[in-house]
Amino acid sequence: MSPSLPAPLISALQRLLGEHGLLLDASERVAYGYDNSRRQALPDAVALPTTRDQVLELVRLCRSHRVAITARGRGTNTTGASVPVHGGLVVSFERMNRLLAIRPGDRVAVVEPGLLNGDLQQALQAHGLFWPPDPTSAPYCTVGGNLACNAGGPRAVKYGATRDNVLALTAVTGQGELVSFGAATTKGATGYDLSRLLIGSEGTLALIVEATLKLTPIAPHRRALRALYRDVDSAAAAVARLMAQAVTPSMLEFMDGECVRLAREVGGADLPTAGALLMIEADGDEAVLAAAERALRQAADGDGCLAIDAAPDEATREKLWAARKALSPALRTIAPGKINEDVVVPVSRIPDLVAGVGVIAKARQTKIVCFGHAGNGNLHVNLLFDPAEADQAARAEAALAEVFATVIALGGQLSGEHGIGLAKRDFLPLAIDAATLAAMRAIKHAFDPDGLLNPGKILPD
Amino acid sequence: MSPSLPAPLISALQRLLGEHGLLLDASERVAYGYDNSRRQALPDAVALPTTRDQVLELVRLCRSHRVAITARGRGTNTTGASVPVHGGLVVSFERMNRLLAIRPGDRVAVVEPGLLNGDLQQALQAHGLFWPPDPTSAPYCTVGGNLACNAGGPRAVKYGATRDNVLALTAVTGQGELVSFGAATTKGATGYDLSRLLIGSEGTLALIVEATLKLTPIAPHRRALRALYRDVDSAAAAVARLMAQAVTPSMLEFMDGECVRLAREVGGADLPTAGALLMIEADGDEAVLAAAERALRQAADGDGCLAIDAAPDEATREKLWAARKALSPALRTIAPGKINEDVVVPVSRIPDLVAGVGVIAKARQTKIVCFGHAGNGNLHVNLLFDPAEADQAARAEAALAEVFATVIALGGQLSGEHGIGLAKRDFLPLAIDAATLAAMRAIKHAFDPDGLLNPGKILPD
Repeated sequence: MSPSLPAPLISALQRLLGEHGLLLDASERVAYGYDNSRRQALPDAVALPTTRDQVLELVRLCRSHRVAITARGRGTNTTGASVPVHGGLVVSFERMNRLLAIRPGDRVAVVEPGLLNGDLQQALQAHGLFWPPDPTSAPYCTVGGNLACNAGGPRAVKYGATRDNVLALTAVTGQGELVSFGAATTKGATGYDLSRLLIGSEGTLALIVEATLKLTPIAPHRRALRALYRDVDSAAAAVARLMAQAVTPSMLEFMDGECVRLAREVGGADLPTAGALLMIEADGDEAVLAAAERALRQAADGDGCLAIDAAPDEATREKLWAARKALSPALRTIAPGKINEDVVVPVSRIPDLVAGVGVIAKARQTKIVCFGHAGNGNLHVNLLFDPAEADQAARAEAALAEVFATVIALGGQLSGEHGIGLAKRDFLPLAIDAATLAAMRAIKHAFDPDGLLNPGKILPD
Repeated sequence: MSPSLPAPLISALQRLLGEHGLLLDASERVAYGYDNSRRQALPDAVALPTTRDQVLELVRLCRSHRVAITARGRGTNTTGASVPVHGGLVVSFERMNRLLAIRPGDRVAVVEPGLLNGDLQQALQAHGLFWPPDPTSAPYCTVGGNLACNAGGPRAVKYGATRDNVLALTAVTGQGELVSFGAATTKGATGYDLSRLLIGSEGTLALIVEATLKLTPIAPHRRALRALYRDVDSAAAAVARLMAQAVTPSMLEFMDGECVRLAREVGGADLPTAGALLMIEADGDEAVLAAAERALRQAADGDGCLAIDAAPDEATREKLWAARKALSPALRTIAPGKINEDVVVPVSRIPDLVAGVGVIAKARQTKIVCFGHAGNGNLHVNLLFDPAEADQAARAEAALAEVFATVIALGGQLSGEHGIGLAKRDFLPLAIDAATLAAMRAIKHAFDPDGLLNPGKILPD
């Protein structure tokens, strides 16, 4: 049992949610207290609502008892955003997972937040449509989690991240009010746009109970290129050239030389030695792909380019992508500790970021490897160390602060797609000045005056 | 002279803005009190700042005297949003019109709010780039006005409206604080997205002093089709078919039969008789356009389609578009009074909207003509009447309320791109429920606690 919640609240929640709708046993609660940041905290109870009315009522009940509420998808986020550090109630949306409607003529889908991204994509395929956000965790993360974190993925370079692909939201505020923003239209100038404000707010402003998603037609064909470079600088320069020309790639992924080595030696990918690698993809009608490939190949080529291989068919494409896919598991094998930060800079500054990270790695004697969504300037900077060695860990922490400072100096942002959560919260003042933070706190207060929704996240105290 | 402002405020503003930076003569002020809604109000003074520091200081000065502030681009909006109905100070950004930077590698431009949309586009052309918002007033409206109203235009169907094409903003809040949201990156998950909240807020939350705009490569080629239909229903059904298939048109414009007649008989366009007309355009590489044209032609064809003409070259394209361009001037000639509302519905509901408007026109004996950006479901519904005839005017007003009710019932919004301003303010509760309006008021309070910024706009009292 959970002794920390007032007994009248527990009774009221039990009445509201039914026998199986409220988890109180510690053995059950423990599964709702962590995320992929490896942080953990035990919630006092877990609610499994099935309707928006239950969500509305549980927020009102928690509010009357001043109990914290942390919304939860499937806990795949990497920042601690879904870890209930102030205890209280975790609201898991796993039973609110219905795909309410697909309307191909309007290019929209209406969903509940607990629907898995992968299940949505599968249902859309029959209509020749897709929803662009494609985080690596797509098969087992929820749309609600994607909304909370403004999730991205490789396709964002052409199709946008979550915030670019949502038309309307229904949500419950921290005051226990049901609000609806937007409509199933691709244009709107009717009052304040609060949908996009909720997207990326990590459950700190409201609990989303329904979303109207903007869909995109699936391109009938795609073509992949793999380009190898002498060093990271020449690959980074190629990224800037690729994004400065007219054909926007549908994916543009970067791996530095150490990632190439790991993918080959640990991941078993069939790859020559190279200082850096780009995976470049175009999609569209068959008629345009030859021209697109020519344009991308021309931009990818230049000083330091060692080879460009094309995948004429899907089987070869899979083989080229195997290197990228082998990477994440391989990374886990080489160091017990890893800080993975998804910083983002203007595309033209990628060469400066890569060079700056190299300088920091050398000065702090810390291994840092970089890969990621280069077309958005969104690099995953991985600092590798052994947490058991206090000295190594301290150097990695110091290096991290310097990486962030470099990113900000280059006009970038702390996070491109993972969010802030707990992991970057205390770095936020590096990126956002005091007056702007005050405006964000005022927004928080407007939606959640008692500070009940996911307390301790995003905004530093 | 302006007697309504306190003398110490006038002196302080004169010191701040210099001899030519503050207009006090009524003959000068009158030009800053109207917009294209034909509403008018005389401001007590007009400020012409040249720097963000001046804007910051003038807001602080006005705040200490509790004087209203209305930001102004070039007054081309249609809703009264820039009419200073509470008097006070109009801040015209005409002298803050610098194009601060174009960075093709990052696909961004950094601008001051007073820059004309048309001047921006011209400067971008040399780089093979454009900024998607293209309201009819583009040559003489400002980027700041586009931001304030979330302006759209024909290209929005493929490239999005203003809100989809801005990466970062710097602004002065109603509390006189300088705030900065976003960065020159196409991805971001770093705190709340307040840029998009300011876009479309019509100067009620903050005064934008700098914007980082997201640019798009200019497609090298385009191809136009003109399709004629027996009646509006068959054209509306074709729009739904066009938007349900994979090739997104770069423009998709609709004119009903009366518009076709006016364009021909009054505007002099070379057009056969038809019940409705669609202008359909694709853009992209030459290689893909033939396939795109085939797909669009196939979707446009169907029951009630009378003819589809293609424009093989730019000269023919101009000729096909002439009908659409002849329309707005022609409309002005047939009725002294016109209410032009830019409602928006899900694309699949366009047939229902057009049918519903027909029923209302008949019942209220009011001439209503429709044209607009059909690919977004964004129709300009024009109610025509003679204001001198009280009975006609009353019927038009009644018809307008019924049009709005129809739009809401179809899941649409009151405005697709013009905004709310004064014109639709009192209809907002039709579209937005009380709890959601309360959330919007809380946001307004967070940015502008004293209610000084463009009072009386968007939110009903």
